[in-house]
Amino acid sequence: MGRHNLQYPKDSTNTIKRYKVHGVYDLETVHSIVNTCPILHVSFNTPSQPFPVVLPMIGQLGSFDRPSADLRDPLELYLHGYVSSRMMNLAQADGEGMPVCVAASHVDGLVLTLATFSHNYNYRSAVLFGYATIVKTDEEKLYAMELISNSVVTDRWRHTRQPPLASEMQSTNILKVRIESASAKISAGSTTDDKIDLENKELVASTWTGVLPVYQTIGEPIPGPYNTAKVPEHISDFSKETNDQRKQRSFEAAEGERRAS
Amino acid sequence: MGRHNLQYPKDSTNTIKRYKVHGVYDLETVHSIVNTCPILHVSFNTPSQPFPVVLPMIGQLGSFDRPSADLRDPLELYLHGYVSSRMMNLAQADGEGMPVCVAASHVDGLVLTLATFSHNYNYRSAVLFGYATIVKTDEEKLYAMELISNSVVTDRWRHTRQPPLASEMQSTNILKVRIESASAKISAGSTTDDKIDLENKELVASTWTGVLPVYQTIGEPIPGPYNTAKVPEHISDFSKETNDQRKQRSFEAAEGERRAS
Repeated sequence: MGRHNLQYPKDSTNTIKRYKVHGVYDLETVHSIVNTCPILHVSFNTPSQPFPVVLPMIGQLGSFDRPSADLRDPLELYLHGYVSSRMMNLAQADGEGMPVCVAASHVDGLVLTLATFSHNYNYRSAVLFGYATIVKTDEEKLYAMELISNSVVTDRWRHTRQPPLASEMQSTNILKVRIESASAKISAGSTTDDKIDLENKELVASTWTGVLPVYQTIGEPIPGPYNTAKVPEHISDFSKETNDQRKQRSFEAAEGERRAS
Repeated sequence: MGRHNLQYPKDSTNTIKRYKVHGVYDLETVHSIVNTCPILHVSFNTPSQPFPVVLPMIGQLGSFDRPSADLRDPLELYLHGYVSSRMMNLAQADGEGMPVCVAASHVDGLVLTLATFSHNYNYRSAVLFGYATIVKTDEEKLYAMELISNSVVTDRWRHTRQPPLASEMQSTNILKVRIESASAKISAGSTTDDKIDLENKELVASTWTGVLPVYQTIGEPIPGPYNTAKVPEHISDFSKETNDQRKQRSFEAAEGERRAS
């Protein structure tokens, strides 16, 4: 693919109106926030109650039709998790699928200022709106299972027993979301306070201001009860790279430029 | 309060049906999962589109009417974040409030088994269903602002400029959710695989199985551009205690007992 920089079009569903926050619509940024998020929050409606439902699920964006697609390309979201019978029915119903909203959020830091009011998170979040259907063919299911497994631990798929048993294929349900609209919000930077507080010398002298970086850590592997193998490279490399990247990201966020309100 | 152990009643909205996962309904567990979660995902519907909306927000359960209430008591959820004009309108409309679903999720570990199919997360998640309204009085708003600030960094409120300015009070919107129903799911433990894979000696010898513990870390404080203060105890204590607790929790989860399917 060429070096395109496609954007999700702004509409009433996805447009970011919040001050001080950087709204982002390019596919690469939105997709990258989703694909590095260990838990996605998937929301949908059921006819039986007034509340939408939110479920935590594992997911990954990809393209079954063009597996070489990268984050800058139009992609579909594959979701794995417990698909309840009510979700199954809704996603299998006639029509275009079940309307869903999927959120991916990363906390990068706690921004501590002079005024409580100016406190902030550094964060990156994305939302996707689309229609979910159940993946039907075994080929596409296998594609999604490998995609999602390798997103949890890089290269894990080929280091486990393959292929899946027929019974495993049958009891695995994958949801596929065709994306209608999406956007991301990024908040980064150090502290900002209003002039009235900055001029209060006693307050400035007595109040620590700055950023507490926040990042997810993968700890030392804990062998299971029937393990006899040494920790393999695909796991130690994954842990080290993930930890380095996440930590670096949170420190970079603290150095970022906060947009003016 | 006495040592009661109240539970949210099971109904069609909140009942957990998933195998291998431990459904929990007692208030203390559900409330504790919510109150230790740095980001909550709040879902609601708008009349203008088929998709529910999910927003990341910061929140904390408490009781304005009885501030001494603890996690075992009936509580209300206070939410802080960008309240869009569409949310404002929905939450201020006549009636009982805006129906919302709020999810809180923690990842405690990646459980890596012989079969890809048996891979798992250790996690704790909670969902609350309820009706959101806008907090109207300044007293309750202040209660919620202090509650939420101190949930982000323990004891931060009294170490910042107080009280809030009138303009800050006016531009802060707090949502209050009256909880109708709630539940939690906990998945913990080490690896389990099926007999067919455990009997495959070559597979067992060549495949690492165990848990990668996962926990959120607060890094070394990064002073902001106008900071002149030393890192105070309320911040260093908070960082150390939070880091110790989160790490310990993820290791304890790996030692937990996985429920049979």
